[in-house]
Parts: sequence; structure tokens; C-alpha cells
Amino acid sequence: MRLIKAIRKNDPSIYSIMEVFLYPGFWCMFFHRPCHRLYKWQLFFLARFVSQFARFFTGIEIHPGAKIGKGVFIDHGMGVVIGETCIIGDDVVIYHGVTLGGTGHEKGPRHPIIGNGVVIGAGAAILGRVKIGNNAKIGANTVVLKDIPAGATIVGRKGKIVGAD
Amino acid sequence: MRLIKAIRKNDPSIYSIMEVFLYPGFWCMFFHRPCHRLYKWQLFFLARFVSQFARFFTGIEIHPGAKIGKGVFIDHGMGVVIGETCIIGDDVVIYHGVTLGGTGHEKGPRHPIIGNGVVIGAGAAILGRVKIGNNAKIGANTVVLKDIPAGATIVGRKGKIVGAD
Amino acid sequence: MRLIKAIRKNDPSIYSIMEVFLYPGFWCMFFHRPCHRLYKWQLFFLARFVSQFARFFTGIEIHPGAKIGKGVFIDHGMGVVIGETCIIGDDVVIYHGVTLGGTGHEKGPRHPIIGNGVVIGAGAAILGRVKIGNNAKIGANTVVLKDIPAGATIVGRKGKIVGAD
Repeated sequence: MRLIKAIRKNDPSIYSIMEVFLYPGFWCMFFHRPCHRLYKWQLFFLARFVSQFARFFTGIEIHPGAKIGKGVFIDHGMGVVIGETCIIGDDVVIYHGVTLGGTGHEKGPRHPIIGNGVVIGAGAAILGRVKIGNNAKIGANTVVLKDIPAGATIVGRKGKIVGAD
Repeated sequence: MRLIKAIRKNDPSIYSIMEVFLYPGFWCMFFHRPCHRLYKWQLFFLARFVSQFARFFTGIEIHPGAKIGKGVFIDHGMGVVIGETCIIGDDVVIYHGVTLGGTGHEKGPRHPIIGNGVVIGAGAAILGRVKIGNNAKIGANTVVLKDIPAGATIVGRKGKIVGAD
Repeated sequence: MRLIKAIRKNDPSIYSIMEVFLYPGFWCMFFHRPCHRLYKWQLFFLARFVSQFARFFTGIEIHPGAKIGKGVFIDHGMGVVIGETCIIGDDVVIYHGVTLGGTGHEKGPRHPIIGNGVVIGAGAAILGRVKIGNNAKIGANTVVLKDIPAGATIVGRKGKIVGAD
């Protein structure tokens, strides 16, 4: 399975393949696949029920409507929120605390489109219908409100020393 | 109920009113009301017990002492922390990962005062006894350490492209 | 016990010593001690199982391999991630949403070394094999990618008002 390979490739802390079944990032995908099917069948309440149960179990909230590619690995995962109209490519790595959300009260497509092979650092917030190009890298805690070209690295401001005892 | 109206108004991803009962932001308020009463009766341990149970269930930690207005909607909610002496007005929208906290070891009133209609983006941290004016908007991941006038929009630094493959 | 003293000293919201047993920061340490022993005995799967159970229960993810000193208090804790090769000194205070992680695919020692008495604000991300000197203070949401001298205070950019109604 592509996700298991992705976990083994991206996480140097893993000692055996069995550990994969302890990963919230494994279980959130396990739940999201049937959830997305329920959503397409317009069983919205049931879909949302499963998705909220998965959130309770894994700390990862993926709206049933989100389209997610193959081998997408959400590492650690606590606090991740992925919106309804989000489209995520293949082999993306998403760390904990990441938001793929909207910017306000828009209706219709309002969440990001993430290319293949993108890496999104912990706590980053990508907001609005923006496109993140293939293999782009987004640094931890970075706020992204516009399109990012393929292969780019984007970061916020690093901490600065402002005083000392 | 004002909270249910607030959820329907602020969340374009909701398909039926029944879904409201799947929202952590609904349940955290459901628990906080009796919790705050226990706190006022000085049943501190019991109040805290209920509040920590609600945190386990919803991912939202509201200290029993916090005063919260009507129609306050905490969306997604995972990782939200609201301090003991916090005062929140009516119709406020708070996204996941928001901290309304202190700056250190102060005693007494040490958490923010949030005006009516304020919107606080995901991951924002408002720290200390600061006042956020009515209808102000705080961007995602923004750190706020001082008073904000009514109607203002306040953001941190957006991400910057620093390299490319 | 040093941790109980640390909680009472650092958290002005606590009313009685019994409340300590409601703190996720208490339970995560309760689980981490035996967990780290299992890891040293190379019972990696079992260690990881206990650590993931503790994450479910507390919202705090500490890899079994992390070395953690005495009196380390993780306040609120939801979303905290502490990596495998992290070394944390004594009397450190860590708020919720903090990441002590790696920067990518390095093998071997790849997570931070945190000195004694360091305070790490909510949502801060300290990434890579960097050293944070004794008693340094890291502000909320700050990203740290390099060594910090003892006693220093380091912050990101505070929010800026960019508009008004």
C-alpha cells in the first residue's frame, strides 16, 4: 500500500512496519475513504458523523468532501483541519497543526489545491482557493494566502533574539 | 438558540441543522455553562473535572472561570485554550488552535477581553490582559500582545518564497 | 514530587493539589517514564503503543525515545509533539502546540536539546539538532532553527494592524 510506503520513507522514527497501525495518519485515511464515498452519495450527516468520530480518535479533522490523492501522509496529525473543497495530490506530507481552510464566508470552492509531492510543515495555514505547485515546501507556522509555484520553498519569519538576562 | 444560528451562519460546510450536534464547538459550550456555575459556587475541583472531560471529548480547553457571551462559535476547535479570567463578548468566532492566555506568572485578571463580533483566525495567540475591540479580525497564527481598536484587522507576516528547486 | 511542585508554581489557575491529577501534563509524564524504559529495552512496538495511547488520552505526543528531565511541566499540552532524539533538561515549561521536531529526512540525532529552566510558548516550533541554552524564553508561535544562548528571549513577529472598517 502506497501510504504504508510513504510512512516508512518519511518517518525515520519507525522501527517496524507494525507501528504503522499506531499512526493517526494511517487511521485518518482509513476512515476518510469510505467517508468521502458517503459524501458523494449525499449521505452528508452519516459522512460527517464518521469524520467527527475519526477526529475524536486521531485528532485530525478532514471534511468528508475533501479529495485526497494516494500516499498522502499526515504525520503526528493533532490539530490538522482540511476543508470541504480541498484537493490534495499524491505523495503529499502534512505535519500536525496544519490548516487547509477558507478565508471567510465564501461559498463554493474555497479551500486550497495542493500539488503532488508538497511538504507542509507543522502549524502552517494555507487559506483560500490558492494553488500550491508540485513539490513545493511550506515551512512550519507559515501563513500562505496566494499561489505558490512548483518547487518553491516558502517560510515565515524566523524567531529573533530580543533580550537576555 | 443563538449558537446554532451562529454555526449555520458562519460555516458554509454545514448541510443540515442536525450536523450541529456533531460540532465540538457546540459541545464545548454545552459543558461550559454548567461548568462556569460550579466555578461560581466555588466547587473548583468538580468544575475543573467537567472542563477536563470536555477537553478530552472536544479538544477544546476552556477554564471554568472564563466568562463567555452568547452565540460564541468555536469552529473545529482542536487545541483551543481559553484562560480563567478571560471575558468574551457575543457573536465571537474562534477557530482551532487559538490561545487566549497569560504572559507568565501574573496573578489576578491576566487573560484577554474580547469584544462582540470579533473573529480570531486559526492558531492565533492573544496573551495578557489586552482588550480586543468589537468586530476586530485577527489573522491566522498572529501573536497579539497589546490592545486592538474596534474594527481593526491585524495579521502577522505572510510566508515569503526563499528558494526554489 | 518535583512535577507537582512545578505545576503549582507555574500555573496560577490551580486551586487545590488534587487538580494536578486532572492535568494532561501530569499524565503524559506518568506514561512517558515506563515508555522510555520499554524503549531502552528495545521493546519498540510496545513502547510506541503506550505512547500513542497517552497521546489519545492527553493530546500530547512524546516519542518513547525522548530523554526528559525532572520537573518538566507541559501546560495544557494539546498538540505538543516531542521527537525521538530530543533531550530536555530539568524544570522546563512547555505550553500547548509546541513542536520539538526535525527538519526533514535526517537520521540519527535530529531533534533539539533543551537546557534547564527553559520556557517555550504556545505553538512554538523548534526544529533540528539545535541547542536552547538554560533559562531561555521562546515566545508563542516562534520558529527556531538555530542555537539560542542561555538566558536569551526569542520571539517572532508580533501582529500588525493592516486595516480597519
